[in-house]
Amino acid sequence: MAAGKELSGAGLRGQVAGKTALSTVGKSGSGLTYRGYDVKDLAANCEFEEVAYLILKGELPTRAELDAYKTKLKGMRGLPQALKEVLERIPASAHPMDVMRTGCSMLGNLETEESFDEQQDATDRMLAIFPGMINYWYNFSHNDKRIDENTDADSIAEQFLWTLHGEKPSELHVQVMQASLILYAEHEFNASTFTARVCASTLSDMHSCITGAIGSLRGPLHGGANEAAMELIEGMNNPEHAEETIMGMLARKDKIMGFGHAIYSESDPRNAVIKEWSEKLANENGDTNLYDISVRCEAVMWREKKLFCNADFFHASAYNYMGIPTKLFTPIFVCSRLTGWAAHVMEQRADNRIIRPSAEYTGEENRAVPAIADR
Amino acid sequence: MAAGKELSGAGLRGQVAGKTALSTVGKSGSGLTYRGYDVKDLAANCEFEEVAYLILKGELPTRAELDAYKTKLKGMRGLPQALKEVLERIPASAHPMDVMRTGCSMLGNLETEESFDEQQDATDRMLAIFPGMINYWYNFSHNDKRIDENTDADSIAEQFLWTLHGEKPSELHVQVMQASLILYAEHEFNASTFTARVCASTLSDMHSCITGAIGSLRGPLHGGANEAAMELIEGMNNPEHAEETIMGMLARKDKIMGFGHAIYSESDPRNAVIKEWSEKLANENGDTNLYDISVRCEAVMWREKKLFCNADFFHASAYNYMGIPTKLFTPIFVCSRLTGWAAHVMEQRADNRIIRPSAEYTGEENRAVPAIADR
Repeated sequence: MAAGKELSGAGLRGQVAGKTALSTVGKSGSGLTYRGYDVKDLAANCEFEEVAYLILKGELPTRAELDAYKTKLKGMRGLPQALKEVLERIPASAHPMDVMRTGCSMLGNLETEESFDEQQDATDRMLAIFPGMINYWYNFSHNDKRIDENTDADSIAEQFLWTLHGEKPSELHVQVMQASLILYAEHEFNASTFTARVCASTLSDMHSCITGAIGSLRGPLHGGANEAAMELIEGMNNPEHAEETIMGMLARKDKIMGFGHAIYSESDPRNAVIKEWSEKLANENGDTNLYDISVRCEAVMWREKKLFCNADFFHASAYNYMGIPTKLFTPIFVCSRLTGWAAHVMEQRADNRIIRPSAEYTGEENRAVPAIADR
Repeated sequence: MAAGKELSGAGLRGQVAGKTALSTVGKSGSGLTYRGYDVKDLAANCEFEEVAYLILKGELPTRAELDAYKTKLKGMRGLPQALKEVLERIPASAHPMDVMRTGCSMLGNLETEESFDEQQDATDRMLAIFPGMINYWYNFSHNDKRIDENTDADSIAEQFLWTLHGEKPSELHVQVMQASLILYAEHEFNASTFTARVCASTLSDMHSCITGAIGSLRGPLHGGANEAAMELIEGMNNPEHAEETIMGMLARKDKIMGFGHAIYSESDPRNAVIKEWSEKLANENGDTNLYDISVRCEAVMWREKKLFCNADFFHASAYNYMGIPTKLFTPIFVCSRLTGWAAHVMEQRADNRIIRPSAEYTGEENRAVPAIADR
């Protein structure tokens, strides 16, 4: 056993495991920044491709750079035939995150990143292909339909909604998806990003790093809180029923998803942004009940527990208003967070040492192997 | 940014990231132990299924327990039709570790681990299926042949050789594979195992954890050293040429794979075991040249640099004598290390806190988003 310095807490909490120039989370006064820009400022003024460019390349693009980047991404949307054939063999009962993980891994067989010179292209290809990939599987397995992933969509946000629903989405829906993808794009050394960095530290390829990160985001302690929030609010008939339900859950000490955060202590800066979009969607829809229910949940949780909504809670109603099936919520997270994961992989590669911690041994002392007859 | 305690070294070296009862690496006087048993003792007295049982369940099996376990594993070898169809769509040019990663991920779609009660069964299924899975792909893509993975092989070791070559292997070859699988089965918090534990800490499923670990083992700083050792020695004509080649590489300060170890300082306890098997294979073969070359490399590296062979170096000649294509060396590592990975996942789940370290921020200070025309 390698001699190791003992840590005070489990889970490496509060331990610096590396350097990053990509984001700050919970730093006093600023909430969440990507390369120095407040996420609220970015969500109000940018489209997702600008933020992806910022995260991956370090600076916001000029108009010409953005146009060139979007043109490049639009040209990379086509799904390889072999990938389609793999997606067609994944049953409708599969967990959509397992589909993302498998699709990403399969892509790595067909278009292997052979050297780190290809890391930007490999990332851009995944950014371009992931929305169509999950919706190809969804439509094939659930609706018995082979979609055409080569749409005229102008952006990744529009591409997701277009390939899901098979028609050009409204301007409002595209705006909401832009904001949503920006909000989820990057979040420092969370567990999925750290998975990607540990994998990158062996100098493995980009598809292995992203495949591993998807597997970690799949875990119920990490991604999926917006799906859980949806399951909660869709069981509520109206705000009064929401209040009753939440009070009952609190009395029973049930876990309520979508509130509080491991690192933010006062509020999640992403909540105000998605809450505003959820309200606009409610008003567009005419039936504001789901939004009103969400607002009541927020009020009760704050009144009773001083717990604030995190990024996930109002995402549930927002996505639902856009007709997105609940099981596809976490795959959207993948389409966005891919930018942060890939940027962390690039950062790890640029200044690498293999991540290989030590363990505290708690097992048996040395012993001799007994003959099988003597056990 | 979460406030973090700074570490002295990168890569979490020497930092305790958790507890384990599974193994000790480099602990004074014992080299490598699995649950308290010296790996050399296990390799001399056990078959791989006994060691897998030990690692996964905590104690060596009785005869009755071992028989039952082997019977269970033998009954789980069949590849699902959809998995075969996926393997058939992966080109011969693919990296075999990408095939393993994709096959494991696809299996997770078809036979999802729905609760942790299924963790042993999910692991056993992978143990049973992985040898046939990689050899199904290899034979289909390279030899245009659909193999029958349901052989009469008595063990995982025999199953690997049988599904690769399409015939019952010799007793000696099975013994070598048994030893090899035992030597590679577990190695504390190396990067692939740590990947599996980070993934497990989100409470994700077993297939996600193992898929992520495969992706990390793929990295050239981690798995693959036995493949690199093979590429080295197959370019050598005889021991004298080996000496010249190594001396030249040392003079040029080339990296020589298969020597030294990040944690072992005096010797790798696994080397003596596989070296002895390599010699037996050489004698069986009659042409001992590759073994003699390997012995000379070992002598020169020790004489010149005081560097010892690690587990990988004599694996190269051993596998080669058994007719195993070099590109399949690291997938064999997967078939073995799966036991350690899965046991670490089970251990993480039993006493979990999400692994979420902090980062040292080195990026831009806060700044406002400029209008795109002003960039």
